[in-house]
Amino acid sequence: MDEPLYELAHLGHAELLTPVYEESLAFFVDVYGLDLVAEADGSAYLRGWSDHDLTTLKLTAADHAGLGHVGWRTVSPQALDRRVAALEERGAAGKWIDGDVGHGKAYQFRAPSGQQMELYYEAEKYQAPADKASYLLNQPQSSVSRGVGAARIDHINVLSRDIPDARKFMCDTLGFKLREHLVPPGQPEVGAWLSLMNKAHDLAITREPADTTGRLHHLAYAVENRSDVLRAADVFCELGTPIEFGPAKHARTQGFFLYVLEPGGNRIEIFAGGIHIYAPDWEPVTWTTEGDGRSTGWGLAVPDSFHTHATPTLP
Amino acid sequence: MDEPLYELAHLGHAELLTPVYEESLAFFVDVYGLDLVAEADGSAYLRGWSDHDLTTLKLTAADHAGLGHVGWRTVSPQALDRRVAALEERGAAGKWIDGDVGHGKAYQFRAPSGQQMELYYEAEKYQAPADKASYLLNQPQSSVSRGVGAARIDHINVLSRDIPDARKFMCDTLGFKLREHLVPPGQPEVGAWLSLMNKAHDLAITREPADTTGRLHHLAYAVENRSDVLRAADVFCELGTPIEFGPAKHARTQGFFLYVLEPGGNRIEIFAGGIHIYAPDWEPVTWTTEGDGRSTGWGLAVPDSFHTHATPTLP
Amino acid sequence: MDEPLYELAHLGHAELLTPVYEESLAFFVDVYGLDLVAEADGSAYLRGWSDHDLTTLKLTAADHAGLGHVGWRTVSPQALDRRVAALEERGAAGKWIDGDVGHGKAYQFRAPSGQQMELYYEAEKYQAPADKASYLLNQPQSSVSRGVGAARIDHINVLSRDIPDARKFMCDTLGFKLREHLVPPGQPEVGAWLSLMNKAHDLAITREPADTTGRLHHLAYAVENRSDVLRAADVFCELGTPIEFGPAKHARTQGFFLYVLEPGGNRIEIFAGGIHIYAPDWEPVTWTTEGDGRSTGWGLAVPDSFHTHATPTLP
Amino acid sequence: MDEPLYELAHLGHAELLTPVYEESLAFFVDVYGLDLVAEADGSAYLRGWSDHDLTTLKLTAADHAGLGHVGWRTVSPQALDRRVAALEERGAAGKWIDGDVGHGKAYQFRAPSGQQMELYYEAEKYQAPADKASYLLNQPQSSVSRGVGAARIDHINVLSRDIPDARKFMCDTLGFKLREHLVPPGQPEVGAWLSLMNKAHDLAITREPADTTGRLHHLAYAVENRSDVLRAADVFCELGTPIEFGPAKHARTQGFFLYVLEPGGNRIEIFAGGIHIYAPDWEPVTWTTEGDGRSTGWGLAVPDSFHTHATPTLP
Repeated sequence: MDEPLYELAHLGHAELLTPVYEESLAFFVDVYGLDLVAEADGSAYLRGWSDHDLTTLKLTAADHAGLGHVGWRTVSPQALDRRVAALEERGAAGKWIDGDVGHGKAYQFRAPSGQQMELYYEAEKYQAPADKASYLLNQPQSSVSRGVGAARIDHINVLSRDIPDARKFMCDTLGFKLREHLVPPGQPEVGAWLSLMNKAHDLAITREPADTTGRLHHLAYAVENRSDVLRAADVFCELGTPIEFGPAKHARTQGFFLYVLEPGGNRIEIFAGGIHIYAPDWEPVTWTTEGDGRSTGWGLAVPDSFHTHATPTLP
Repeated sequence: MDEPLYELAHLGHAELLTPVYEESLAFFVDVYGLDLVAEADGSAYLRGWSDHDLTTLKLTAADHAGLGHVGWRTVSPQALDRRVAALEERGAAGKWIDGDVGHGKAYQFRAPSGQQMELYYEAEKYQAPADKASYLLNQPQSSVSRGVGAARIDHINVLSRDIPDARKFMCDTLGFKLREHLVPPGQPEVGAWLSLMNKAHDLAITREPADTTGRLHHLAYAVENRSDVLRAADVFCELGTPIEFGPAKHARTQGFFLYVLEPGGNRIEIFAGGIHIYAPDWEPVTWTTEGDGRSTGWGLAVPDSFHTHATPTLP
Repeated sequence: MDEPLYELAHLGHAELLTPVYEESLAFFVDVYGLDLVAEADGSAYLRGWSDHDLTTLKLTAADHAGLGHVGWRTVSPQALDRRVAALEERGAAGKWIDGDVGHGKAYQFRAPSGQQMELYYEAEKYQAPADKASYLLNQPQSSVSRGVGAARIDHINVLSRDIPDARKFMCDTLGFKLREHLVPPGQPEVGAWLSLMNKAHDLAITREPADTTGRLHHLAYAVENRSDVLRAADVFCELGTPIEFGPAKHARTQGFFLYVLEPGGNRIEIFAGGIHIYAPDWEPVTWTTEGDGRSTGWGLAVPDSFHTHATPTLP
Repeated sequence: MDEPLYELAHLGHAELLTPVYEESLAFFVDVYGLDLVAEADGSAYLRGWSDHDLTTLKLTAADHAGLGHVGWRTVSPQALDRRVAALEERGAAGKWIDGDVGHGKAYQFRAPSGQQMELYYEAEKYQAPADKASYLLNQPQSSVSRGVGAARIDHINVLSRDIPDARKFMCDTLGFKLREHLVPPGQPEVGAWLSLMNKAHDLAITREPADTTGRLHHLAYAVENRSDVLRAADVFCELGTPIEFGPAKHARTQGFFLYVLEPGGNRIEIFAGGIHIYAPDWEPVTWTTEGDGRSTGWGLAVPDSFHTHATPTLP
């Protein structure tokens, strides 16, 4: 039996592009509740109050909304080298960069689903200044009540026209585990949910409805409780950000969710909960349902935009 | 740099001893909300509705309350062999047994803190009969509302007179990571919290106040939300089980907790939440506070019994 | 200035008709979580665990689903006499009946919106037997975890083709206060929410889309917390009762809701929260929005059935 | 049978005295989450975001902490006249004042328990400016996330050496209803909980342990959900305000509570939930327990300070 790989630790950061940089930045700070930690070369670097690392979101001014890249942190420098070797062996060779605000050298490559990704190990831990230090030593900083108070980066959902191909690549080369997928009878696979260790998912790959590649469906930050998601619904409404979908419970992952579009047009989720996966021999769950039951556990109708709207990737 | 070990997957099961077997069994089924899956040779085998494996609690009739043993599941057969080799190299050699209800061959050994433990890989996955199947395919069975509805085994807290020795053994031989510890100035370490992957803790080791060894402080099952712990407080009171401590929030782990004693005398927790640990280079948090702040984040006084009552181990 | 009337105390009970009596009864006991307190002459009498009075729901076998009658309890025998005089003065004379299980003599009349209603004062307080007594003396009985655990009768929503006429009658003769109404520009009023004392509503009157009279839109029982409504969503799904609408937050009343149809076809709600009204000079809130915003505060689309399905009244 | 009186609508406002005006004001705004609406003559006037009226808390600089007065709003001008007549008939004559920020003429009197109180009807409704208007028309203003976000004034707890005398006065002259009281066997009554309409309590009178009169035990504002009280616990700790007691559930009223002392020394509560009282013939619940069970439903020990610390009244 092949042993499971535990080589990637977590989703480290994502870079989002926006054509309305100032409005998007104001949204992420005042409405989503992230803290701005640096601004340089047309990009802002932000963090959730519960993020361990210095920064988990890079927001970059661009001609259009979309995904810049996705960064995955390995569990060790050795694991980084091994995963790079695996990528090169698979023919997905990329290139090394020196690093960016918050992390050191990184290996950039393009996933078969078209998104730019990178692997790295060296990351800068956040050190709270005295006025932001929490009374709880095991918390990176005081909790933030501003806006919806997004706490920590959780997962990313990308689109692909060939989900089995996209997910096998992520599993074989990087050690993702397939936890659940949705395969309607007689149709191609329309969704796959993959995770690294104990989460329901760190990465979701769902079906690209258009004749394109590399698009982003959404980026999600987590809050601790379902009640925080309900509070977020009120806060979004009070602050003038329409809710696209939710709050409700996903069937896949069982996460409690709420989606909005940030001013640039990228879809952003507030997420809580989800199943925990401890079994090392978890067998992927195969769902066959479609339609109303596609995304929600309680039967809530899915808005059309959720199946069609997505934002492109950097060429 | 040494690489982190990901060799143990999770707390697999615990065996509790009770001098009042029928009363304890009734408690675990009717009040705690576990399902009985088998009964054999003076032991009952139970499971939480969200447990992946067939059984996570073995309840055994005995002369006194206490801990029979603790079972840890490895991530693979190969990891099992490697960990056994590490135990033997460390001089903690034990012996193989053929297995028990719910799992295959296991390697039994005694931890330096005095508790009987075992490692195993082969485990039986729970297969719900039709009348217990959930509408959610990623859930082992329908959720249970009986009693407090304990969902899944979460962690165990054992006592030790030499915590640094006890935790170093678990880290070095089995791959536990020290996440937090409590070291009051000028005193020996009084608590250590260790985990395997993304949880705040799978194992806590706190200070043995008496001149003995191997005792159990408590066994914990998790529920999903803080609101479930609050509901549990009402249900315990309605069903005549006094609450020893909680509901409140721990400082260490940030878990939301509630403790009771089962009829045999073993301390049982209902737990929700807790910090998530994704950083592969998490630095152990050293707490120095004592007194009221010892166990609770909000300053709630700790009852004396929480520092003195514990149940013994099998000789 | 006219003084506000505080003459009716609360919604006392409702009688629902069902063509599938056994299935409906099983639903209300096993899924909705009510207790059966009596059965006589083709009717079952049920109660929520937090209801003060003996029974709040009468379920009656009939040819079709629908509303039997609605019972309102007055604050005193004198208030009962005064309200009957007011009804007779308004030309809505009815007749006295001797009483029913749970209450004494009642004055029956038909509201302008077509529903059979009754007023009464004498009611039987529930006295829990020892095995159902709560540890809390201020609670009628132990809380119930069976099914969704509906706690207490909360409000009723009837339909009317002439809402201003229907609500003015209830306000003028019985002392209801108009709290909110929905009047889309250039259209007739489509909804009115009325209450007696501090609640957001005890009675809602919404627009009858068909050429008929006296229909029931829904009957609601309350639970204490939003988390109980979320739990109810899971429990309904596990027990095979499809959710028609929710969980979500109403714009009007701000209640947190979830609707299902009981097996007979009557719409039933689980409700939590809602605004509190303490101001004696509360000015009715006039809403003008329609469409998606009609019923939900967070923009959730309303299913068509919610605007069309209703169950008839006794001729 | 005497009819129940519905003559007082709600607790309208309270005046707190503080020797550290600036610190207390900063606490109520930044930590407790109230909005400042006016400042005049050494007093600040504040409101919770869900309060209907302009102001519910008057904070006045003084030599010591304590209670200035308690204001009760009647349901009508006529009810005000009737209650003043009842006070004068009872020999508790006071005097009329012209009014204050937020309300018109008021009748001031001293309760037998020693606190200064006043009755009034005319009150100014809060009109939110555009930048504070809520998207929900039935809400006085946008919800506030600053600090713990105290939403609306809820109840007040005063001390008395003769509780039966104090509560009978409030019931007979003003129409309060006794809902629950605590009478340990062989001892004087130690607590009484009274309400006006549907709440568990608008006024609590508990036993004065010292040889004095007129003291304040605490003033409470409500939040909507238990989860808001749990969030408040974290926020108080993050902002450096120690928690005296809670979060936990009261036995009396079943409210979910948390107490702190504001910088001036007055005890302040954050409260959610509590039983609902709709029965017009509610029979007072008599509790006889003492000790640990005195204040909490789940058995949490009560800190000594809760039984001894209180703040004085204006002479």
